[in-house]
Amino acid sequence: MAKKQKVQRPKAQTPKGFRDYFGAEVAQRTDMLRTIAGVYHRYGFEALESAAVETVEALGKFLPDVDRPNEGVFAWQEEDENDNGDWLALRYDLTAPLARVFAQHRNDLPTPYRRFAMGPVWRNEKPGPGRFRQFYQCDADTVGSGSVAADAEICAMLADTLEAVGIERGDYVVRINNRKVLNGVLEAVAQQIIDENYPNGPRTHGDGGAQDVLDRKDVWQANVLRTIDKFDKVGAVGVRQLLMEGREDASGAFIDGVGLTQEQAEPVLAFLTSMADDSTGTLTNLRAAIGDSAVGAQGVDELEQMANLLAAGGYGPDRIVIDPSVVRGLGYYTGPVFEAELTFEIKDEKGRPRSFGSVAGGGRYDDLVKRFTGQEVPATGVSIGVDRLLAALHMKGRLSTDTTGPVVVTVMDRDRMADYQAIVSELRNAGIRAEVYLGNPKNFGNQLKYADQRNSPIAIIQGGDEVAAGTLQVKDLILGAKIAETATHEEWKDRPSQFEIPRADLVDRIKALLTEQSQ
Amino acid sequence: MAKKQKVQRPKAQTPKGFRDYFGAEVAQRTDMLRTIAGVYHRYGFEALESAAVETVEALGKFLPDVDRPNEGVFAWQEEDENDNGDWLALRYDLTAPLARVFAQHRNDLPTPYRRFAMGPVWRNEKPGPGRFRQFYQCDADTVGSGSVAADAEICAMLADTLEAVGIERGDYVVRINNRKVLNGVLEAVAQQIIDENYPNGPRTHGDGGAQDVLDRKDVWQANVLRTIDKFDKVGAVGVRQLLMEGREDASGAFIDGVGLTQEQAEPVLAFLTSMADDSTGTLTNLRAAIGDSAVGAQGVDELEQMANLLAAGGYGPDRIVIDPSVVRGLGYYTGPVFEAELTFEIKDEKGRPRSFGSVAGGGRYDDLVKRFTGQEVPATGVSIGVDRLLAALHMKGRLSTDTTGPVVVTVMDRDRMADYQAIVSELRNAGIRAEVYLGNPKNFGNQLKYADQRNSPIAIIQGGDEVAAGTLQVKDLILGAKIAETATHEEWKDRPSQFEIPRADLVDRIKALLTEQSQ
Repeated sequence: MAKKQKVQRPKAQTPKGFRDYFGAEVAQRTDMLRTIAGVYHRYGFEALESAAVETVEALGKFLPDVDRPNEGVFAWQEEDENDNGDWLALRYDLTAPLARVFAQHRNDLPTPYRRFAMGPVWRNEKPGPGRFRQFYQCDADTVGSGSVAADAEICAMLADTLEAVGIERGDYVVRINNRKVLNGVLEAVAQQIIDENYPNGPRTHGDGGAQDVLDRKDVWQANVLRTIDKFDKVGAVGVRQLLMEGREDASGAFIDGVGLTQEQAEPVLAFLTSMADDSTGTLTNLRAAIGDSAVGAQGVDELEQMANLLAAGGYGPDRIVIDPSVVRGLGYYTGPVFEAELTFEIKDEKGRPRSFGSVAGGGRYDDLVKRFTGQEVPATGVSIGVDRLLAALHMKGRLSTDTTGPVVVTVMDRDRMADYQAIVSELRNAGIRAEVYLGNPKNFGNQLKYADQRNSPIAIIQGGDEVAAGTLQVKDLILGAKIAETATHEEWKDRPSQFEIPRADLVDRIKALLTEQSQ
Repeated sequence: MAKKQKVQRPKAQTPKGFRDYFGAEVAQRTDMLRTIAGVYHRYGFEALESAAVETVEALGKFLPDVDRPNEGVFAWQEEDENDNGDWLALRYDLTAPLARVFAQHRNDLPTPYRRFAMGPVWRNEKPGPGRFRQFYQCDADTVGSGSVAADAEICAMLADTLEAVGIERGDYVVRINNRKVLNGVLEAVAQQIIDENYPNGPRTHGDGGAQDVLDRKDVWQANVLRTIDKFDKVGAVGVRQLLMEGREDASGAFIDGVGLTQEQAEPVLAFLTSMADDSTGTLTNLRAAIGDSAVGAQGVDELEQMANLLAAGGYGPDRIVIDPSVVRGLGYYTGPVFEAELTFEIKDEKGRPRSFGSVAGGGRYDDLVKRFTGQEVPATGVSIGVDRLLAALHMKGRLSTDTTGPVVVTVMDRDRMADYQAIVSELRNAGIRAEVYLGNPKNFGNQLKYADQRNSPIAIIQGGDEVAAGTLQVKDLILGAKIAETATHEEWKDRPSQFEIPRADLVDRIKALLTEQSQ
């Protein structure tokens, strides 16, 4: 016989960086999204669902290259006759679509516009272990309000949301800060530079003096911000070294510093270490750290207003604190920033204890809508990382993981399928999750194996004897599993794992047994 | 002054064929999906959520062309060094991903595998009015069971689902048919052709006789199927004409017929008109229509088994009927097919009454998994068009459209924001949807306009007088709107639209008023 040519079959594989979610995983996420939506709704936010696909132009930041748009998004060009179609892309977050939606529908939307959105976003990044290219976000934003009351409200809502999904008070903290305070501190540093280099004012451009330092403000400010962000890793001493001459890291490598003098570094250190026992103390320390900076003073005022509003709403420092070390990215935010951290301990990859870390963050941003309309529209919002929050609840054992399968009605006699169908319909009509075995019924052992694989609590059996007697056999699979585990029937001798019931008592008896099992 | 160069701003537009969903629209769909998931779960189906993105190879059917994959899907090529990355695409339905998932995870999944999936799918088609390129599907499939009990179960579940989401019994019907019966009828037609042309058997290939007709079976069978599909538009007489010489349509144009003789057309007509008062009658008629065809007899047997199983489960002809005119596409299905139709009348674009039509359909298909594994895996499933079902419920006024906005706490005195925050927190903690006005509070009229735009039921006002008196003003906006409508206060003189309450009674009084309003 001639050798058959090998058939080319498609690979049954998700694309790299994508995955499937089964059963309880899907249900748990759905439940969590529903709970979060409930809190957001109670706060007056309205649902918005935009499409997964946006024009690259509207998404912004990622623009068509010669051939393909920049990395970071999944993008493609629409086909048209002139090969000149729009570039489309999958959304990479829920904020860029919000800006487009608000600009497009602003005449029909109330202002301020409070909206929430939940759904997958896509990133065209190199996937890694635990890093996926599609994941869920769950955002709430207030567009069109410049009031810090909007920021405070979102922090309060974030705290309420964490408690609603099952994170207990004490296991989380919402930390707030304000970018204007940071800007004030950087002004204070600049002032130090000027004072030290040219006490009578800045020198002129290009002579390498203080004015040049100010000219390169963006560069050294970014360096200072990056250094601040290392505070929780290297502490105050480490930050001071990194702001000045540099330091040796754990591996022995030398990390260059920003090059500030001790006096210049001082305002940054004062700022970073300004967290006190209560917000009043922290605010006093911050006022000292920002020196004469007007923008800094404004930032501290805003933090104070937020603290007052939150206190009035009953949100004390057990839930929301002012924490000057919160930075959250570089360019984006313009005022208040906030971050929710889960504080309970987990073990890292090397078995060392560390706190679970951030599950949500946000802040005030003011120029997203401006891209479209030219008008500056103040906005503030928060994004919850749903998958991380689910992972946290999983670790705390706080997910109601009801993975109980359906009651399985077995098939003893293929010709009496209609009888089994009647049994299963009765159960379903009574609200009981149930199914009839639909595989090949020949091997009864396979039916019980199937019930086991489905994690079924009960199997129902009806052969010829039972039909004649008007009865059913009920197999308590949960009890059966317990007996199998301990290999003795002794403990459960008063409760048989299989028993006969009248056919007419089906629903009542199964309901009673399910209740018993769940206790 | 020099003329400013015009700034190029991005257009704030959804891509063509995509749209945004706001507030109640999102909530209604979420509620419906939850209800459907509840029924599917009760039937023993497990949730599955696969990613929006699949490899084009796994999706099948759409293969990479020279440059771009065929039309119909949104696809792009992964970047890699050799410009040889995988082609990826957005899923165009939920069945193709199921086939991939089952093939990929088959060793870990129970067999039969009952799964449900809900979510958006994408079609790269020309958008039109009411035709979108992203829409929701909601599927349930049983993979790995060849039993018609699996098909019957899905039909029962479909009926239960429609009732669960609010379609009353009598307003829908699930029609079932079987492709094997159709195949049997086509065999009967072929037999007629042979009998008429060559009573002693088919002639040889290529002489234009009966054998050639059989050789071109696919073509004329497709024509016959297409003609059958017009039964509800043109009736039995019209179908007979179209099967034979053709007919004039309403516009006067002549439509060519398939070219059968009267004797050849007869089995098709007998089949199409075989629906009787009950399924027993229909089955008898069908047996007559299929002649001696073995596959036809198998199809009728399967329909009979399904009818028996459904009757045993309590699903009578008021919910599920055998209807030989159900065709559902050409190639795909191999056995039972089914379709849920909403039977209540709506007006078409021209104001003529017609029934709402199909909202769900499905059937048995057997070769989707085979593409991956080479093994034939029987499967059957249903897909509900969620958006169409929502539209139907909308028309019937059966959507619980609670578009009531939040209680709005107005801002009379910007410096007492903390007091307003305390009011709103109390309300929220009591489970009442509430918000403080976050826009510019200067113009009080704007605050009431905002409350109106939000469809708020109640506005709360607290100025200096109320603070001094320890009270709040409560404005009943629903009553206010009624009074404004009738332009007289007479009817409501015992129920003022604005009144004062003690601050301490806030939650109780607002709760009471909301209850009163909803009655």
